[in-house]
Amino acid sequence: MKAMNANIKSSIADITLYMSEVGHAARHASRAIGKASTAIKNQALGAIADSIVEQIDGLKKANALDLAAGKEKGLDAALLDRLELSDERIHAMAEGLRQIATLPDPVGVISSLAYRPSGIQVGQMRVPLGVIGIIYESRPNVTADAAGLCLKSGNAVVLRGGSEAIHSNQAIAQCIKHGLKVAGLPEEVVQVIATTDRAAVGELLRMKQFVDVIIPRGGKSLIERIANESQVPVIKHLDGICHVYIDDEADKEKALKVAFNSKTQRYGTCNTMETLLLAESISAEILPVLAQMYLDKGVEIRGCEKTRSLLKANAIDVVAAVEADWSTEYLAPILSIKIVQGMEEAINHINQYSSQHTESIVTENYTRARQFLREVDSSSVMVNASTRFADGFEYGLGAEIGISTDKLHARGPVGLEGLTSQKYVVLGDGHIRQ
Amino acid sequence: MKAMNANIKSSIADITLYMSEVGHAARHASRAIGKASTAIKNQALGAIADSIVEQIDGLKKANALDLAAGKEKGLDAALLDRLELSDERIHAMAEGLRQIATLPDPVGVISSLAYRPSGIQVGQMRVPLGVIGIIYESRPNVTADAAGLCLKSGNAVVLRGGSEAIHSNQAIAQCIKHGLKVAGLPEEVVQVIATTDRAAVGELLRMKQFVDVIIPRGGKSLIERIANESQVPVIKHLDGICHVYIDDEADKEKALKVAFNSKTQRYGTCNTMETLLLAESISAEILPVLAQMYLDKGVEIRGCEKTRSLLKANAIDVVAAVEADWSTEYLAPILSIKIVQGMEEAINHINQYSSQHTESIVTENYTRARQFLREVDSSSVMVNASTRFADGFEYGLGAEIGISTDKLHARGPVGLEGLTSQKYVVLGDGHIRQ
Repeated sequence: MKAMNANIKSSIADITLYMSEVGHAARHASRAIGKASTAIKNQALGAIADSIVEQIDGLKKANALDLAAGKEKGLDAALLDRLELSDERIHAMAEGLRQIATLPDPVGVISSLAYRPSGIQVGQMRVPLGVIGIIYESRPNVTADAAGLCLKSGNAVVLRGGSEAIHSNQAIAQCIKHGLKVAGLPEEVVQVIATTDRAAVGELLRMKQFVDVIIPRGGKSLIERIANESQVPVIKHLDGICHVYIDDEADKEKALKVAFNSKTQRYGTCNTMETLLLAESISAEILPVLAQMYLDKGVEIRGCEKTRSLLKANAIDVVAAVEADWSTEYLAPILSIKIVQGMEEAINHINQYSSQHTESIVTENYTRARQFLREVDSSSVMVNASTRFADGFEYGLGAEIGISTDKLHARGPVGLEGLTSQKYVVLGDGHIRQ
Repeated sequence: MKAMNANIKSSIADITLYMSEVGHAARHASRAIGKASTAIKNQALGAIADSIVEQIDGLKKANALDLAAGKEKGLDAALLDRLELSDERIHAMAEGLRQIATLPDPVGVISSLAYRPSGIQVGQMRVPLGVIGIIYESRPNVTADAAGLCLKSGNAVVLRGGSEAIHSNQAIAQCIKHGLKVAGLPEEVVQVIATTDRAAVGELLRMKQFVDVIIPRGGKSLIERIANESQVPVIKHLDGICHVYIDDEADKEKALKVAFNSKTQRYGTCNTMETLLLAESISAEILPVLAQMYLDKGVEIRGCEKTRSLLKANAIDVVAAVEADWSTEYLAPILSIKIVQGMEEAINHINQYSSQHTESIVTENYTRARQFLREVDSSSVMVNASTRFADGFEYGLGAEIGISTDKLHARGPVGLEGLTSQKYVVLGDGHIRQ
């Protein structure tokens, strides 16, 4: 780890030149990793994990530099916590890489190879995207996770972490380089940008010739800025304003379970419910019980007029939801509740206010379940299940690099397959067009 | 057809307002078409086709206005030909729409619905993209084709044709509106922009809130300009610099057939071969015969030094290829030829100069065929088949809206499925996250 600090360049004279070298090297390395065998890629993942465990002291020393600088800069406790690399988190990083090694390799999978009337056989082969740029905030474990997913899916990656984690990220980068070398892969398959200069991000977003896709991870303002500025296509996840709709034909027990879990299982996650919609005819039966469950848990309720008067009649006072509440991602123990006539009004509300992340209906009605699944235009649409399931691990992707609320390419949790594309393959026997 | 001219607004006072109304109406209509049944969509396609045939005289009258204006503006013969709506072309438009009706509906198809350890069932459902903007040049038949493909795939579409075809496009738009009405669908599912003001394109490219993807169709300069300017994601096809590589283990007959057909079956198409690569050890056997075939057909050859001296020894003089030839899409009876050591050099040449459209290897060698398929990073990669097969109809997509040389979302011919995306669907029975 001793060469580590030498890799951090707080000022590089020519950022454009530096980034163009990074881009060029990434494109070149993408050819090698694109054709690397599954065994070699898994070997690299294992060797990186080994190196991370071996270098645990070095990683913690580098992390201590970031933590000290962070304290001096006055970062708040939550940020400092996210920045910290504890023994447990370092072992979890290594374990995450070993798990990625166990996932099926998506690259080279050929689907629907079929004969055409002309006699040629046509199919689609899954192929890496090429070079992926990832821009992320303080958690240094993203460096290992993102590198592992890109590597396994046959892509080269350029990582740009937050400046507050630069020492930690560079220390992890050394472990990654070591692992790539052990497996005989070019070190440039994974490059962690070695400067905190913000101009480097601007360059990355302009390098269309070297970078195939940008994935930003972090707060909404970071992602919005990157999406607006980038000339490279972006897979982005802006926010999660998720809804649960309790239909008038809902099973009461399921409704209570799903609505309670969707809000309270974790508050700060993007798949947490922010607005509960409730059919009017079932509201008297459900809402007073459910509201009490939320209040006992410490969740603040902001209700529509009907919600407020129904609860008031049950001796529960809640504040009025204002227009802005319907489009707010609280990420906190706050819930807005609206009573609607039925599913149609619920779907209209969702279409207007949802961030198209995840919506769930609770119903026993077959026709409405089918209709909700078809008509709600979100990346995950559920029946009788907690919105908290919208997650790469729960969906069986093994791991996720993010959750896309875009429509092109990948929607919802993006795992290894989301980091690939498909090309056409044609097999002939000297076939020509007539 | 009499109201037709009233729809053409050569100057709209407030283009921003007009386009925002178009965008708003498209977003609204996208909800209706997104949930429309297959039967209703097919009924609309049939009714549009009927209307086009019924209105053949009106269409030709409108087209005559465009042709007259085009002649006055001094458009060349090729452009005027592309602009013309003959009886045959009008019937072909209608027939194209009826064929789209026979294609399977991609919307709502659920794949890989499987139980997860948590007990939930997770799958992916194919869904429309939403609103598609299509910007295209002179051929008015694109108006009907593009509208049909978007409609069948459950999308609303905003079409912006070339100003030289405005009367023809508006006349076709009237037939489309009529067909949509017959099927009980909103007329705004297909909107053809009723002004030739170029500011409308600028607005379209900025309407992220209303438009989900832009598909430009036309020359390279149009597409480049749109891709650079657009804030909406673009599915684009820039150019087709396609290669055939004849390996030293090629079957001679197949090599001659594939290389000849790839160049000469049609010259002006994007899947036409522009550069032939040839393994040195087989070149003496193949090249003189093949070159004579090209020359007899009137194809100009531009050769590397080895090509020139080999052909000279066979009494054939060809001009020298210069560096620019390797990256030129001739779209004409011109072919550049390069002799390489073997497949590795061929792949390196392709990686450097190809537009990643279509490349084909001619070989009997099993290992090299597999390697070429895996390692060549183009949207179509072929073995022993003419590059001219890279086409939506030949691939069984039924129809195509374009050929994408991008990497995200769709690569190669884009048919109905390429105009859709996939969302996750989750089925539970009151399941919650632990």
